[in-house]
Amino acid sequence: MSELSVRFCKGHGTENDFVVLPDPAGELALTPSLVRALCDRRAGIGADGVLRVVRCAAAEDGPSGVDGWFMDYRNADGSIAEMCGNGARVFARYLVESGWQRRGAFTVHTRAGARPVEVHQDGSVTVAMGPARVHDESAAAVHGVKYPGSAVDVGNPHLVCLTEVPVAEIDLWAAPEFDEVLFPNGVNVEFVNRLAPDRLRMRVYERGSGETRSCGTGTVASAAAALHADGLATGTVTVEVPGGRVTVGIGGDDTSLTGPAVLVGSGELDPQWWAAH
Amino acid sequence: MSELSVRFCKGHGTENDFVVLPDPAGELALTPSLVRALCDRRAGIGADGVLRVVRCAAAEDGPSGVDGWFMDYRNADGSIAEMCGNGARVFARYLVESGWQRRGAFTVHTRAGARPVEVHQDGSVTVAMGPARVHDESAAAVHGVKYPGSAVDVGNPHLVCLTEVPVAEIDLWAAPEFDEVLFPNGVNVEFVNRLAPDRLRMRVYERGSGETRSCGTGTVASAAAALHADGLATGTVTVEVPGGRVTVGIGGDDTSLTGPAVLVGSGELDPQWWAAH
Repeated sequence: MSELSVRFCKGHGTENDFVVLPDPAGELALTPSLVRALCDRRAGIGADGVLRVVRCAAAEDGPSGVDGWFMDYRNADGSIAEMCGNGARVFARYLVESGWQRRGAFTVHTRAGARPVEVHQDGSVTVAMGPARVHDESAAAVHGVKYPGSAVDVGNPHLVCLTEVPVAEIDLWAAPEFDEVLFPNGVNVEFVNRLAPDRLRMRVYERGSGETRSCGTGTVASAAAALHADGLATGTVTVEVPGGRVTVGIGGDDTSLTGPAVLVGSGELDPQWWAAH
Repeated sequence: MSELSVRFCKGHGTENDFVVLPDPAGELALTPSLVRALCDRRAGIGADGVLRVVRCAAAEDGPSGVDGWFMDYRNADGSIAEMCGNGARVFARYLVESGWQRRGAFTVHTRAGARPVEVHQDGSVTVAMGPARVHDESAAAVHGVKYPGSAVDVGNPHLVCLTEVPVAEIDLWAAPEFDEVLFPNGVNVEFVNRLAPDRLRMRVYERGSGETRSCGTGTVASAAAALHADGLATGTVTVEVPGGRVTVGIGGDDTSLTGPAVLVGSGELDPQWWAAH
């Protein structure tokens, strides 16, 4: 079916899904229009975003003078994004399954900097997520019901609301209200039940996207807020999200996210289809 | 990435999308659970249904003593389906692009019988859709607003409501109400604007699915009802649907549907993923 060959892989991390485009030499002209077409769930392959796999030396936005791989992450709307915890797991696993990195620990380069990762024997992946800082008390409101919460900065803003209302019962069809002075650029809002001291159940409303099946930085923020509520600055917490389960490690000045990275299938895009977008 | 190899292709006809599984010798054990996993838009490839491509001689449900190919069509929920006009286009184009049929006219075998198809030079495909019979006047209601319509049988039941209300303005979030005596097994409801004597714009609410981007039998029913309203039993009508545009031919005792069939990409499913479902 092909002369010109553009390879792809479809994968997901806790049901946050991606079209992976291997492009070691940085030859693909990946326009916003192509990203939107690839992510279209009916007329394309369908995904939350695209992960272009390019050698640092060949990546326009990549670090210079560095060996290794750059994660060129794009949102489904075609815009450029800095970092995605679930995407980094899929990216790292793809590098290992394609033979471009050995299983074990290595570094993935992103627009948010170098991220240490480790691909485990069972295919799950740990990604260093940077520091999480619990900094303010605030609240979200859903249909007039107020949920007290903690503001947490994980590179992006979160509002984590620990609640005894079962999260399955909260209506996240519309955006929760929040303090627009504290969060002038919007905020990702997590609703969290404690199932045990070290086990949480979370639903998340992502700014700009609505409710999603999973949010990597949201699970880190939730774990940090739960430990903080217990007067702890470090610990390990399991977080159940609608799309699966992850484990968050909170250290003094770094955090880690461990979870599944699933590759569903791989192949070649139809050259006619590619040329048409 | 593979030892055991299950090939797949993702394609769509007017944004009704399918995972095509080539299985000439009928060797795939395609369980409902695998169909659901394949059609899962986040944890799988994602589609409205699966089209297994199997030689008639090797198909359990296929006709016996016949050369050619059987379209084993499954709905996204894992159930078995008889026939799908948009799916048959994608199926026929796949046969041509894979080299299993020559471009031009041939027959696709389905659970609803043998269907003549023709794959054109531009990749569009014509499928014979069987007779359409306009048989009763009835009406649908949306939020208390009544839309008079015609009942049309195209192998499955339709209620075609020609209206001057712009179809884009009709709320199809919830199911339209209909006469449950006339349609005891439910009905697919089409709302149709006439743009010209031979040009329609249609939205459809499919029973069991809700609003869809396209419905092959729905476009045939709409064309038949529009011609019938003009006192015509035959004619050619273009129908614009949210997912694209098709051309319907209404003959004396047969109908045809011509429209695009797009193959997006093809490759292999990950054996670990396949084994896990």
